[in-house]
Amino acid sequence: MARVLDLPRNEGGIATAIEVLRQRLGPRVETGQAFRAQHAHTTTWLRNQPPDAVICPTSTSEVQDIVRVCAEYRVPVIPFGTGSSLEGHVNAPAGGICLDFQDMNAILAVHAEDMDAVIQPGVTRKALNAHLRDTGLFFPVDPGADASLGGMAATSASGTNAVRYGTMKDNVLALKAVLPSGEVVKSAARARKTSAGYDLTRLIVGSEGTLGIITELTLRLQGIPEAISAATCSFPSVEAACDTVIQTIQYGLPVARIELLDALQVKAVNAYSRLGLPETPLLLLEFHGTEGAVTEQADVFGGIAREMGGTGFTFTTREEDRTRLWQARHDAYWAALQLRPGAKGISTDVCVPVSRLADCVTAAQARLAADGFIAPIVGHVGDGNFHSLLLVDMDNPAEVEKAEAYVGWLNELAISMDGTCTGEHGIGQGKATYLDRELGPGAMAMMRAIKRGVDPLNIFNPGKMGLD
Amino acid sequence: MARVLDLPRNEGGIATAIEVLRQRLGPRVETGQAFRAQHAHTTTWLRNQPPDAVICPTSTSEVQDIVRVCAEYRVPVIPFGTGSSLEGHVNAPAGGICLDFQDMNAILAVHAEDMDAVIQPGVTRKALNAHLRDTGLFFPVDPGADASLGGMAATSASGTNAVRYGTMKDNVLALKAVLPSGEVVKSAARARKTSAGYDLTRLIVGSEGTLGIITELTLRLQGIPEAISAATCSFPSVEAACDTVIQTIQYGLPVARIELLDALQVKAVNAYSRLGLPETPLLLLEFHGTEGAVTEQADVFGGIAREMGGTGFTFTTREEDRTRLWQARHDAYWAALQLRPGAKGISTDVCVPVSRLADCVTAAQARLAADGFIAPIVGHVGDGNFHSLLLVDMDNPAEVEKAEAYVGWLNELAISMDGTCTGEHGIGQGKATYLDRELGPGAMAMMRAIKRGVDPLNIFNPGKMGLD
Repeated sequence: MARVLDLPRNEGGIATAIEVLRQRLGPRVETGQAFRAQHAHTTTWLRNQPPDAVICPTSTSEVQDIVRVCAEYRVPVIPFGTGSSLEGHVNAPAGGICLDFQDMNAILAVHAEDMDAVIQPGVTRKALNAHLRDTGLFFPVDPGADASLGGMAATSASGTNAVRYGTMKDNVLALKAVLPSGEVVKSAARARKTSAGYDLTRLIVGSEGTLGIITELTLRLQGIPEAISAATCSFPSVEAACDTVIQTIQYGLPVARIELLDALQVKAVNAYSRLGLPETPLLLLEFHGTEGAVTEQADVFGGIAREMGGTGFTFTTREEDRTRLWQARHDAYWAALQLRPGAKGISTDVCVPVSRLADCVTAAQARLAADGFIAPIVGHVGDGNFHSLLLVDMDNPAEVEKAEAYVGWLNELAISMDGTCTGEHGIGQGKATYLDRELGPGAMAMMRAIKRGVDPLNIFNPGKMGLD
Repeated sequence: MARVLDLPRNEGGIATAIEVLRQRLGPRVETGQAFRAQHAHTTTWLRNQPPDAVICPTSTSEVQDIVRVCAEYRVPVIPFGTGSSLEGHVNAPAGGICLDFQDMNAILAVHAEDMDAVIQPGVTRKALNAHLRDTGLFFPVDPGADASLGGMAATSASGTNAVRYGTMKDNVLALKAVLPSGEVVKSAARARKTSAGYDLTRLIVGSEGTLGIITELTLRLQGIPEAISAATCSFPSVEAACDTVIQTIQYGLPVARIELLDALQVKAVNAYSRLGLPETPLLLLEFHGTEGAVTEQADVFGGIAREMGGTGFTFTTREEDRTRLWQARHDAYWAALQLRPGAKGISTDVCVPVSRLADCVTAAQARLAADGFIAPIVGHVGDGNFHSLLLVDMDNPAEVEKAEAYVGWLNELAISMDGTCTGEHGIGQGKATYLDRELGPGAMAMMRAIKRGVDPLNIFNPGKMGLD
């Protein structure tokens, strides 16, 4: 827990700001203990650091007003979506005001011809896709949780189909955000392409609330594919599975998803869902396209997989069969937790060049075994990104410490392979100490210069990303 | 020419810096008049503002040394690739030292399994693709000119196949750049995906040399497609052509290129290349994929085009026929210039949401006709981006002024359609006055805060992007 520090609190400023905001917003300035605790970090193993108050703003101009008050009294502002991030992004180590965007959940426009949608940040990805169903379009980024799109943008989320459709960085066309000064920034026009000035869109995406509070997003949409095929294949080793991934991508097969489950994860799913899969590494794939194309693609993949020693290759285009084939992946998290009931999951998130993936996964497995951890692995292997989920007894400080040591070791290993400590979970508090190791002093200096330039009072989500 | 201002020169600092650099680098500090003029802006209609000296650095550490000297004496530093940008990016309005990267042209590594390459910034895109030929991989971004990849990154270039493969923002995985402090920033690891800190890669890409001097690039590569098909089709109107584009994209056809030539441009090409194309709007397309897929795709496109009133639909997968079909596009620029020999071309670069493209092109044509300009139009219409090439007698100030008024009017029109004044040419000097109109004071404030934070002395490419 060493990395969750309490920062100095500006007690007088916080009290005054809450008073001023109460005069304007009345009981909408919520200060109840339970409500505040819910708005600190909930889905992580990191310690909860609640804000001093929570407000659910209803408009960009209301956010501007609140930010101006907070700037005047030098009070931290922490944006909140659904709280499903994993690295302490919404903790309030110096206290402050949490802005919960649940009431800014309007879909403002769907431009079907331009294949984009303009939304408020509190819209969740499932709500957007439900709204889009009749248009033949969908928003592809899928981090698993039904996160808010504002939070997904702020943390640069991705997930299983980033290999085909990219991450939030690739799918946010433009955004509006409130700056620490209270000004609103429009990051880009709605055109598909622009070279007009600094790429503020992609700077704010992934900046974890430290530069701007997102109040509107313009998102790229995709056409719902005519057909989807799913395929699975078992492999004698992680190397054989990873070599298959490399061959598949090099061949140019436009896989929509390509996921790895290691043998322990397959074992967990067999037990949880009463499946009878061989307890060896498993690849699960999905292809999107025309009826003919997705069958051909699954076929080509089957050929590659068999050459690499794959067995039990199965594919289908029927929806119910797809769901069954992918059940192992859908159940992975809950199945993993059942391997050690009562334990909490600590997830790693390294991402390495695909050529190093087998080495990295194999080394991770060896150290997990040596350390005595129960820790299944799932990976978005088309991108070189994988998670080991360490099942840890949080009441055992020695075990927690050993888990932290493993996380640090794996982060360093990935960095030594020209990879990153975080493919999609972000830095937050949990990985603040690794960013410098990964990118070095020049990058840290540039990030701090940007932060200082945009937020000289350091009121936007302080204590995150190792910037202060 | 009003937009090419001379900025105050730090004469003493410049003279001293040149003296200090001469002591270190000897005659490599070039100050000859002709050489300097070649390193100011050459392929634009804007006035030439030469630097005071030109140096061709040979390593990142040499760039660091030069930048540190320039920082000490507060002298501008202007990076130079091949000088093919169009908006005065390499002009030196306050004088200073130009860094020409022609000698940093090594391909440092090709990671075929990871489908990336690490290069120095002076490598041109054709040189990279020649080097890659035997690997089965290629680098897709193609702005027409054989530009340096460092310059393409700095200006966020794209071109005809951005609709399929994206722009430089999508194809630079990571970079190294020297900051105004002389520090080196490593923007990201070589992994395909990262959420580690601010997206410095995409901030520096497109920053036009104002934040960092790029000294190394890691680029994403693509597999050379098994087959390529080309198709052309004539249309009764720009609207019919644009509606065909919208339908094609919505259908999900993965077009690699989709280009529009307006009737005047077709007429120009007919005259220049002795073709017999109907002198109506023309779409040219290219599809990349398997043999079966590219034929099917061209076929589907043919069906859509005919429904929209397209005629003379032709397609082929044979290389020599593809070249012939695309001759109209390859010759477009030179054919256009022949419409008015001796005139100089002034190119616009607006990009609008695709749903507004027909309106924007049609309005542009009407005003060009009313103004009496000869100005054919070509467009990367899958992205909503098009260029009108105004053929202007630069010795006639009234005509130049009228051309500038047209450019301004078109930029405003595109902005009013939620588009941008620049899809791919960048801001430089030429469009500095429009950036504020497009994005507003919040975005300008944020860009200036970033610039001030990173380059407090304003020594990196001053006078560009309207930031100072």
